[in-house]
Amino acid sequence: MAKSKFEYVKTFEEQDSCLPETFMVIRIDGKGFTKFSDLHKFEKPNDLAALSVMNQAAKDVCTEFYEIFLAFGQSDEYSFVFSKESTLFQRRKEKILSTIVSLFSSSYTFHFEKITGKPLLKIPAFDARIVCYPNLKTLRDYFSWRQADCHINNLYNTCFWKLIIEGGKSNQEAENLLKNTLSDFKNELLFSQFGINYSKLDPIFRKGSLFVRKYTVDKEKQEKLEKLLKENPKAKVSKPRMKATYELQHVDLIQEEFWRLNFPELYE
Amino acid sequence: MAKSKFEYVKTFEEQDSCLPETFMVIRIDGKGFTKFSDLHKFEKPNDLAALSVMNQAAKDVCTEFYEIFLAFGQSDEYSFVFSKESTLFQRRKEKILSTIVSLFSSSYTFHFEKITGKPLLKIPAFDARIVCYPNLKTLRDYFSWRQADCHINNLYNTCFWKLIIEGGKSNQEAENLLKNTLSDFKNELLFSQFGINYSKLDPIFRKGSLFVRKYTVDKEKQEKLEKLLKENPKAKVSKPRMKATYELQHVDLIQEEFWRLNFPELYE
Amino acid sequence: MAKSKFEYVKTFEEQDSCLPETFMVIRIDGKGFTKFSDLHKFEKPNDLAALSVMNQAAKDVCTEFYEIFLAFGQSDEYSFVFSKESTLFQRRKEKILSTIVSLFSSSYTFHFEKITGKPLLKIPAFDARIVCYPNLKTLRDYFSWRQADCHINNLYNTCFWKLIIEGGKSNQEAENLLKNTLSDFKNELLFSQFGINYSKLDPIFRKGSLFVRKYTVDKEKQEKLEKLLKENPKAKVSKPRMKATYELQHVDLIQEEFWRLNFPELYE
Amino acid sequence: MAKSKFEYVKTFEEQDSCLPETFMVIRIDGKGFTKFSDLHKFEKPNDLAALSVMNQAAKDVCTEFYEIFLAFGQSDEYSFVFSKESTLFQRRKEKILSTIVSLFSSSYTFHFEKITGKPLLKIPAFDARIVCYPNLKTLRDYFSWRQADCHINNLYNTCFWKLIIEGGKSNQEAENLLKNTLSDFKNELLFSQFGINYSKLDPIFRKGSLFVRKYTVDKEKQEKLEKLLKENPKAKVSKPRMKATYELQHVDLIQEEFWRLNFPELYE
Repeated sequence: MAKSKFEYVKTFEEQDSCLPETFMVIRIDGKGFTKFSDLHKFEKPNDLAALSVMNQAAKDVCTEFYEIFLAFGQSDEYSFVFSKESTLFQRRKEKILSTIVSLFSSSYTFHFEKITGKPLLKIPAFDARIVCYPNLKTLRDYFSWRQADCHINNLYNTCFWKLIIEGGKSNQEAENLLKNTLSDFKNELLFSQFGINYSKLDPIFRKGSLFVRKYTVDKEKQEKLEKLLKENPKAKVSKPRMKATYELQHVDLIQEEFWRLNFPELYE
Repeated sequence: MAKSKFEYVKTFEEQDSCLPETFMVIRIDGKGFTKFSDLHKFEKPNDLAALSVMNQAAKDVCTEFYEIFLAFGQSDEYSFVFSKESTLFQRRKEKILSTIVSLFSSSYTFHFEKITGKPLLKIPAFDARIVCYPNLKTLRDYFSWRQADCHINNLYNTCFWKLIIEGGKSNQEAENLLKNTLSDFKNELLFSQFGINYSKLDPIFRKGSLFVRKYTVDKEKQEKLEKLLKENPKAKVSKPRMKATYELQHVDLIQEEFWRLNFPELYE
Repeated sequence: MAKSKFEYVKTFEEQDSCLPETFMVIRIDGKGFTKFSDLHKFEKPNDLAALSVMNQAAKDVCTEFYEIFLAFGQSDEYSFVFSKESTLFQRRKEKILSTIVSLFSSSYTFHFEKITGKPLLKIPAFDARIVCYPNLKTLRDYFSWRQADCHINNLYNTCFWKLIIEGGKSNQEAENLLKNTLSDFKNELLFSQFGINYSKLDPIFRKGSLFVRKYTVDKEKQEKLEKLLKENPKAKVSKPRMKATYELQHVDLIQEEFWRLNFPELYE
Repeated sequence: MAKSKFEYVKTFEEQDSCLPETFMVIRIDGKGFTKFSDLHKFEKPNDLAALSVMNQAAKDVCTEFYEIFLAFGQSDEYSFVFSKESTLFQRRKEKILSTIVSLFSSSYTFHFEKITGKPLLKIPAFDARIVCYPNLKTLRDYFSWRQADCHINNLYNTCFWKLIIEGGKSNQEAENLLKNTLSDFKNELLFSQFGINYSKLDPIFRKGSLFVRKYTVDKEKQEKLEKLLKENPKAKVSKPRMKATYELQHVDLIQEEFWRLNFPELYE
């Protein structure tokens, strides 16, 4: 195709790449979701349908980019990690970042009404960042950071909203009551005042949501293969291709056990 | 809120900012839109409804970020430029890039069915890049590059699809006929074979779509003000705030006239 | 030449370029020069020989890279600016930065003993940074910043050392006396206590040192040409090449006059 | 100290940092050293004195920055690696890069005449780059790359200059003879035509130069301590501080043995 004399402006573009052989992590974060939650009357402190929309969007992202081996979400944020060897888009930061956040946003919007049963009253937006982690230790610490954050926020919010909704406190009173208190205090408060055993709450709220990559046999390909061999037992066949699927879990990822169990290849 | 011992992983994040006092341009580009177009049976060479979805998404982006003074779109791409003085998100590249492409994607998905009258069969994704232009000349050349690209592609595609749909050529035959030909040849081909005067085609196809920022009086504020003054003629009033609106145009932006007319402040 | 299987490690290198059509400024700064000055018994508050070494090193840098059109130095720092159009080393940041600071350091070391008449007791080191300025206003403000800094520091230091050397104050006493005082106070102090009219001090101390690029006829080429024409008056000759030379000045660069006079091409 | 209104220009500076917990490698490379070598009549293919100046400069750099645990040099280049945990200059790229290349250049210039016994006829300059390696494997491959390069170049150059100096060939003839030949051919050529057993040549030429960090007891501190204890056997003493010294070696670093032997801590 012909080129114009203006083409030179392309030289102003920068090429910023993720360092090779590092884990590329993309974290997506809702923009103005406090307001967005109020507008759509999300339940406090957690709205299961709202979390399901996040999870569906995350699953769509994973399914499109099978080099993601783990995703973790809580509240209005989601993190995705690519394998160290990934060469997706030549590891260009802008390209990876923008494509992931775009697909996530489209998917969130697409599924919102179906999953929540409510009309979408405001077009949702997310920001995103991309960070490289050079080794398994720092990668694990990254996900531990997000899951610890989930725990800390959820314990606080559970107390806060119980105090308001059932305890009849004002926002300010609830805030003052909880200020500078430790976990033990909050657990005790939930138990003694509201009869809640925090550790028995739905793990989706306490642990967040994880998508863990699993490789399974691609059934379609497998069946084709079997049919072929039936017709011609001497046909030259290649190994049926494995397919990445993603399993939704709500478990502790801070312990090493989780990693050794699900991703033994990271320990080789 | 309490912090965990994992917090240190934040130090792995990079802070990449756009050079101050440069024009920040974000260009969004459809991912796999050839396939997306076929899937949704978009008309060839141009589908007016599909372009309208792009324009609606672009308008939603502009309206959210009034520091955008010009946007230009064609086919499955859109460019937005922020004023040189903008300090949006402290000019952080990742934050600006991700937020814009996210909002655009959500909006595209949100409006698709309503505008095209077709069900959305695949969740659309866009990639995006951010580029800084240090002065008006290079900025104008950037937009000229995109509009020249629009013209070159549209002239080619118009010929190509006429040859196929009305001329009964195969894709390969049409390609061979047009290979290495100049504009004059293509204009003549359209006129002599298909009775088409290219310059009379709908300008949205030939020139693309522009959103030009206009400042108008904020009527709501103006009315409040007038009511106030009626009640108390000596009330101390501040100037009613101006409001940014965006006017959709399909005009030539390569000529300097366009810039002097719409953005005289860039010449001060 | 043969390549080894280890060659792939080159892919870990980043390519960071200066935005085209911006002024590239490199600022060099002495590392640990307070100690270095004491060790070599530099005169307080200013040592003319020490400044001359800095100036000689700066001149060597300019002469090697004629795309530098202005350099400014004070104390143990020096700034160099390249023309906006420069494509030196494809504008790669690391390459430009390292080469300039390397040549400056070598030259400083090479000339030190000859110019100061003192043995070099410690190997000097400088750090450096590279910054892009998108237009003349910000470039001028950059140099104004450094010259204003020179003025502020020199006025303070002149007072400080007069109070100590001639006034018999301790370092702490001098510091306390000058703390939070304005320029007028310091000027008055110098005049009333030490009979010094600050504005009459050597401008190299008050204004710093500037190298201003001038284009002059390359005499050698000119003579060759004249000789050639004498021998063969009809010889086909090309225009004798102009040569960049650098003029050392100690003048005010904050006023626009300086720029219009020396670099009228920046105003075209 | 007072600030000027021009201070804002500092916001145009970028802060680019090396990813934490990666090995930071700085490679320095002579600028125009073919010419520099000819000018100073360096011996071909290797000049021992010239290499000694490089080694002295490298040693000065290591000694100043004890977080360097290995340096490798050959011809007119030198590489330095910092420990993964280093927080030198907050890991700012420009600061580390510029300081290292500056000190190296100053030191090279400072030692040149003393070591070579020749006057320095041109001020030497080096460029430099900084690269992060995320793990031991890629770091080892980096150094293997440089040492393999040393071997390949030295074998070629040894043949080339023997053919010219002793074999009476022209540059072009020597080049043609060696073009596309393998190592075996070159080894055989050296042996049969010039009676040289390549593997017996001085290892500094074949393997390059390595500075390996060793921690030894700081004798000065140790003696002070012993004296103190003699005077007062019950004095409370802290452990005498260890001191980093650098041992010059010319050995194979491609084998893992080198790393396990010298840096066992990298395998913990």
